[in-house]
Amino acid sequence: MDFKIDNLQYCNWSRKIFEINREAGLDAIHVTIVYHEDFQELREVIKNWQKHFSENSDLIFHGKSFKDIEKAQSDSKTAVFFGFQNCSPIEDDIGLVEKVYDLGCRFMQLTYNNQSLLATGCYENIDSGVTNFGKEVIKEMNRLGLVIDMSHSAEKSTIDAIEISEKPIAITHANPSFWHSAKRNKSNELLKILSDNEGMLGLSLYPHHLKDGTKCTIESFCEMTAKTAELMGAEKIGIGSDLCLNQPDTIVEWMRKGTWSKSENYGEGSKNKPGFPQQPDWFLDARGFTNIESGLKKVGFSKNEINGILGNNWYNFYKGMN
Amino acid sequence: MDFKIDNLQYCNWSRKIFEINREAGLDAIHVTIVYHEDFQELREVIKNWQKHFSENSDLIFHGKSFKDIEKAQSDSKTAVFFGFQNCSPIEDDIGLVEKVYDLGCRFMQLTYNNQSLLATGCYENIDSGVTNFGKEVIKEMNRLGLVIDMSHSAEKSTIDAIEISEKPIAITHANPSFWHSAKRNKSNELLKILSDNEGMLGLSLYPHHLKDGTKCTIESFCEMTAKTAELMGAEKIGIGSDLCLNQPDTIVEWMRKGTWSKSENYGEGSKNKPGFPQQPDWFLDARGFTNIESGLKKVGFSKNEINGILGNNWYNFYKGMN
Repeated sequence: MDFKIDNLQYCNWSRKIFEINREAGLDAIHVTIVYHEDFQELREVIKNWQKHFSENSDLIFHGKSFKDIEKAQSDSKTAVFFGFQNCSPIEDDIGLVEKVYDLGCRFMQLTYNNQSLLATGCYENIDSGVTNFGKEVIKEMNRLGLVIDMSHSAEKSTIDAIEISEKPIAITHANPSFWHSAKRNKSNELLKILSDNEGMLGLSLYPHHLKDGTKCTIESFCEMTAKTAELMGAEKIGIGSDLCLNQPDTIVEWMRKGTWSKSENYGEGSKNKPGFPQQPDWFLDARGFTNIESGLKKVGFSKNEINGILGNNWYNFYKGMN
Repeated sequence: MDFKIDNLQYCNWSRKIFEINREAGLDAIHVTIVYHEDFQELREVIKNWQKHFSENSDLIFHGKSFKDIEKAQSDSKTAVFFGFQNCSPIEDDIGLVEKVYDLGCRFMQLTYNNQSLLATGCYENIDSGVTNFGKEVIKEMNRLGLVIDMSHSAEKSTIDAIEISEKPIAITHANPSFWHSAKRNKSNELLKILSDNEGMLGLSLYPHHLKDGTKCTIESFCEMTAKTAELMGAEKIGIGSDLCLNQPDTIVEWMRKGTWSKSENYGEGSKNKPGFPQQPDWFLDARGFTNIESGLKKVGFSKNEINGILGNNWYNFYKGMN
């Protein structure tokens, strides 16, 4: 069986988007359900998702293990896996790690852009690595089968997490910085350590992570993928599009600022371009997977490797979660 | 007027202890009301304090500015100033800084022993200094008149805070490490930067911060004070006893562990001595101020300097708060 998985989406969810994901043939998506929410707020977010599940039960259901990816394919649905881009839901309480797992959450970033109680985000000046509390939380995440995601974390913190974790970790949505230098993209050294430790990289389609942004070409993206495969092995690469369909610009403002600052903060944007950037025309939504498929063929990937990158590699990673 | 101030106590509060503080002639105490509590829990703690104030209104009242220290002296009462040993009550929300100020809180440590969202605690391996959020919070604390306390913070974080803050900061309870090397004690370099920036050091009487612990002699303590005065100036030194009268050992366990670890954690203690250490016999409670007074005289301090150390220096610091 071959699977198609987009391992990071954060859309303004609607039936239309679930239909698009089905049209794209996605068997599974990992969706961000938390940027800054605490545990109580997480419960509210999950309540909203229960509504999505019941109203769109012909299209989606809550995914909790790799078996749900298989089930999704045989039922022609998309399994939706929950993840956080921040550790805010566990607050300062090790006991909440199990509670978020029990609520069906499967990925947690140790940090968003700033310092968290667990590790350092990529927007801080100095990276002190995984903290005392972070070490305890990693142990607990490993025990439960909650995946450590370091997409927004700083380099030393990420390397620490890889070394401390007894299970492979993920960078669900980022690109290599050799291709496009950005705070959110990752060095060759880090990507090598990640893949040497059975970790996965989900390639991002978010314009701020792409060479030439919105104007990035599919050829350039696929050449980058080929070089990344030389570095990491093609089986360590997947897609984590970071697609934010139909989100208003107030959302990206909130993602960046949360409640931590009274000043303006443009994150990856700028004063002149504070909002969500436009997607490249070959990846307006998940149906762009077909463009990536053709593009990867053109740069010389085998059918097997392409199927891996488009979903099977993530499927295998999910298999090792528990 | 001469004032007596103990700028850190965390006792198991009772009428008896308020009486002892009055007997000791204390015009003001800064009390820790938070170790790990969030904003909602802080409100509960303050409710309990309202009960103390109403039941012991002949002995204590809630202090909010230096004028309350004067009022306390003329009314023969002790003004009680609220402070936190952690930034947990502001959670991840810059807006809560003003709310805790409005609740009458006047001191906040940027960290307890571990990494916080604002800075690094002295029990972490690597100190990355004041974070992005920390910089915003310092600005806000300065604006309001909430004192930055770095007693439990790591060195670079403390130096950062001194440099970033536009108002003098405090180390309310610690000793110099030249006298007793402990994670919680402070280097000469740091103490010099602190005093050069009009900051204050409150000398601690907590046995883990004392040379020879419980067996520390008053002579040794006062000689250390003299050397510290050479370094910082006698007018930059006060007392912050860190007195934890009548607290059960479960409390020190909670202080150290909060909810961040499932493992044992002995902090400054050890497996064989996990509980609160015994106070030295010359400072069993605040009435020990008289022993310090005589001791400081013996090592050559002037009356004026002694009055400064026992309270006037803190009084002057409070004057600059707002």
